[in-house]
Amino acid sequence: MTELTDLSLSEVSDLLGAGEISSLELVEANLRAIDKTEPVAHAYANILADEAREAAARADAEMAAGDRRGPLHGVPIGIKDNIYTKGIVTESGSQVMAGFLPDHDATCVSNLKRAGAVIIGKVHCHEFALGSNVPPTRSPWNLDCYPGGSSIGSGAAVTSRSSFGALGTDTGGSIRVPSSINNLVGMKASFGRVSIYGVVPVAWSLDHVGPMTRKVKDNALLLGGMAGHDPKDPTSAQQPVPDFCADLEAGVAGLRIGVERDYFFYDGLLAEIRESVEAVIAEYRQLGAEIVEISLPELEITQDALFTIVLAECSAYHRKLIREHSDKYDPATRAIVQLGELVPATHYLAAQQARSLYRDALLRVFSEQRLDATLWPTMPIATAPQDQLYASRADGFPDTPVGSMCHHTFNANLAGLPALSVPCGITGDGLPFGFQLTGRAFDEATVYRIAYAYEREHDWHLRKAPAIANL
Amino acid sequence: MTELTDLSLSEVSDLLGAGEISSLELVEANLRAIDKTEPVAHAYANILADEAREAAARADAEMAAGDRRGPLHGVPIGIKDNIYTKGIVTESGSQVMAGFLPDHDATCVSNLKRAGAVIIGKVHCHEFALGSNVPPTRSPWNLDCYPGGSSIGSGAAVTSRSSFGALGTDTGGSIRVPSSINNLVGMKASFGRVSIYGVVPVAWSLDHVGPMTRKVKDNALLLGGMAGHDPKDPTSAQQPVPDFCADLEAGVAGLRIGVERDYFFYDGLLAEIRESVEAVIAEYRQLGAEIVEISLPELEITQDALFTIVLAECSAYHRKLIREHSDKYDPATRAIVQLGELVPATHYLAAQQARSLYRDALLRVFSEQRLDATLWPTMPIATAPQDQLYASRADGFPDTPVGSMCHHTFNANLAGLPALSVPCGITGDGLPFGFQLTGRAFDEATVYRIAYAYEREHDWHLRKAPAIANL
Repeated sequence: MTELTDLSLSEVSDLLGAGEISSLELVEANLRAIDKTEPVAHAYANILADEAREAAARADAEMAAGDRRGPLHGVPIGIKDNIYTKGIVTESGSQVMAGFLPDHDATCVSNLKRAGAVIIGKVHCHEFALGSNVPPTRSPWNLDCYPGGSSIGSGAAVTSRSSFGALGTDTGGSIRVPSSINNLVGMKASFGRVSIYGVVPVAWSLDHVGPMTRKVKDNALLLGGMAGHDPKDPTSAQQPVPDFCADLEAGVAGLRIGVERDYFFYDGLLAEIRESVEAVIAEYRQLGAEIVEISLPELEITQDALFTIVLAECSAYHRKLIREHSDKYDPATRAIVQLGELVPATHYLAAQQARSLYRDALLRVFSEQRLDATLWPTMPIATAPQDQLYASRADGFPDTPVGSMCHHTFNANLAGLPALSVPCGITGDGLPFGFQLTGRAFDEATVYRIAYAYEREHDWHLRKAPAIANL
Repeated sequence: MTELTDLSLSEVSDLLGAGEISSLELVEANLRAIDKTEPVAHAYANILADEAREAAARADAEMAAGDRRGPLHGVPIGIKDNIYTKGIVTESGSQVMAGFLPDHDATCVSNLKRAGAVIIGKVHCHEFALGSNVPPTRSPWNLDCYPGGSSIGSGAAVTSRSSFGALGTDTGGSIRVPSSINNLVGMKASFGRVSIYGVVPVAWSLDHVGPMTRKVKDNALLLGGMAGHDPKDPTSAQQPVPDFCADLEAGVAGLRIGVERDYFFYDGLLAEIRESVEAVIAEYRQLGAEIVEISLPELEITQDALFTIVLAECSAYHRKLIREHSDKYDPATRAIVQLGELVPATHYLAAQQARSLYRDALLRVFSEQRLDATLWPTMPIATAPQDQLYASRADGFPDTPVGSMCHHTFNANLAGLPALSVPCGITGDGLPFGFQLTGRAFDEATVYRIAYAYEREHDWHLRKAPAIANL
């Protein structure tokens, strides 16, 4: 028998719309999945069983009265715990925020509530989304390997099928990295597309909030429910929100996809990932896309630029907090915050200038080559054993595994362009990985369209993680 | 006999339009004034006699053919030497840029050339517009006192009547301070109104370029010729440029003018300036304006915020230059640049946050009180003896004279709102001073309208500085 939780967000949305299932049934199915998978995955910081049942009952009553708000009405989703939820404890993975009860929702949450979505729980994140400590959360794909962060619970919950979708946040790759590791679709949309009001900052000029789901269409639906201009967020863009699913099935014939090989297809790229992503590229060519080889030497400055900006803005945010609550920080988080206080303003400004230089170069390539998107692996490795994150890499490449993790992702935060990780393989060791599409500013629709053209030819999204497959 | 140079920019513009004088006559009159006043004022870094004569002859030929480009066609103006002029040495007051020949014009200069203006010369500025060293330039109002900076030559040239108008730059008050000291009208327009492309940066998030003239209408005409969106400047605003003179004579009946007294009318305000500015306020009330007492305690954070931002951005700009050319910097400039390298990024970011806090508070007051402008003295003192800038103030107030100079001006740079200094008195010691109007973003027209209502009742602009009066 197929469990309801084996269906994807867009599939249950269709069934809700047809009146064939109720929101309450979905919530109960999720809660049963939570009972079974949490002892393995530890995805949830806070399971909102009663609140979810109440919200589902309200949604069911509204839909029964013929008032369906849209495709997310009645769909249960998880919220990363660094995102404010009114009256619901929001701790951002930190003792510093223990017991904190926001008096308002983050705008992305209030948007989702208005769209009728049901919040099934708050999911774990690394302390303040900084990615240094690791909560008990594990990926059911491999309990000994790093499960991906900082949206660690978002990845574990969706791949455990204890949530149909989850919100993550991404400052250097924190949506796309756990999506790649957990065989999920993860979107960091254009900077300004989704309000970051009510999201605990990591580095406000790079922060994004976005959806993590099993399938491309799920992701497009969830982004549609979160996105939109927000006067409360000074970085929010005055951009209309299109139907991100409208062109999903239009295919890729005639679209131009750029591939950069010096930075993304380097010696440190795992052979299995290289082969699979080359196969993805070949497949897009066969589907009618034009593959354009591009050059982008400015990528070499992105890592230093991003780390400098993150350290400085992050320390600026924590400057008062860490003086008052130093002992409550995890030592690894505290070290980052204190390190950031040593960054000179001139270096921060040089990093922002380097960022502009990179963004301008990328936009010029997009424009001159008339690109619809670029394509490269989401990560150079699949993941690494939890206890070897800071060791030498097993393949001898001179970088730590943790240092490699965001190597392919942070450039999109600097550029502010939409970037999507799409599952495209599982290594011989059973570790999933994905490829990454980067699109034009505010053209998430084309990114989804390209991703969907690949996804519909494959069944990666049907694969079930071994640690929860037989629960 | 009235010299042509005794006329104001708008008056000679009218005569040019009526065909009663030629551009070449104006250039020759300016060059004669330069011969007479430069030994006193030392305003010019570079007198462009041949180039100005050629440009004037071209303008005259065009106008004779019935092709008058607008009110600036054929009008000679001076350009501050930190503004790029194609093929004309641009040194920014520094040995570091000795002999530098830009291969393009700053956008404000190319805009003025397109409007037909004639460049009579490049005028001095403090080294890199930082205001620490002082060039030989003197104000003809008092040769022993500080002549105002950093647009030091702009002020001296216009008040010496060796130029009908001049471009200055303003990061914390560098247009308005020398305007107040030299009995001139000086405008720092809205941030983004005038492109800063091709202007040597001081602190790019605070930098403005703007016009200094003898009269309000002159100023409105000159701003009209400089302003407009520029894709080459990422901070340039997408705002249409109105006719800034359209409502000049509409009066102030019904307009609402805010006055803040805790910060701007404090113990350190010179009694003569206090009395005169109170008289200005009373006069506006009599002319039909509503005077609204406002409270703005956030002003207390503006000085620290501005200095931190200036130090950091300025040092970021000079970071490479000062390593290569340390010995060519004036010691006072070098000290500022080196000091800026010690500013932590967290302090810079805190200063930018303080700036937002101030701007938000000011905009809230503008909105809640439905203000058209605010009004306060441009400076708390008129000026100070050149050799006592860093001494205790003569009146015993616990601040240095140089520390007082920008106390009333830098808040407008932080807020990005248009701010205009308007002459309103001369002390018993013969030192001019002005009042300052701050308007709504991109509403320079209303600021000019308010200023004009005062100016037309007075003749400050007719007063001639003693050191050049009988030359």
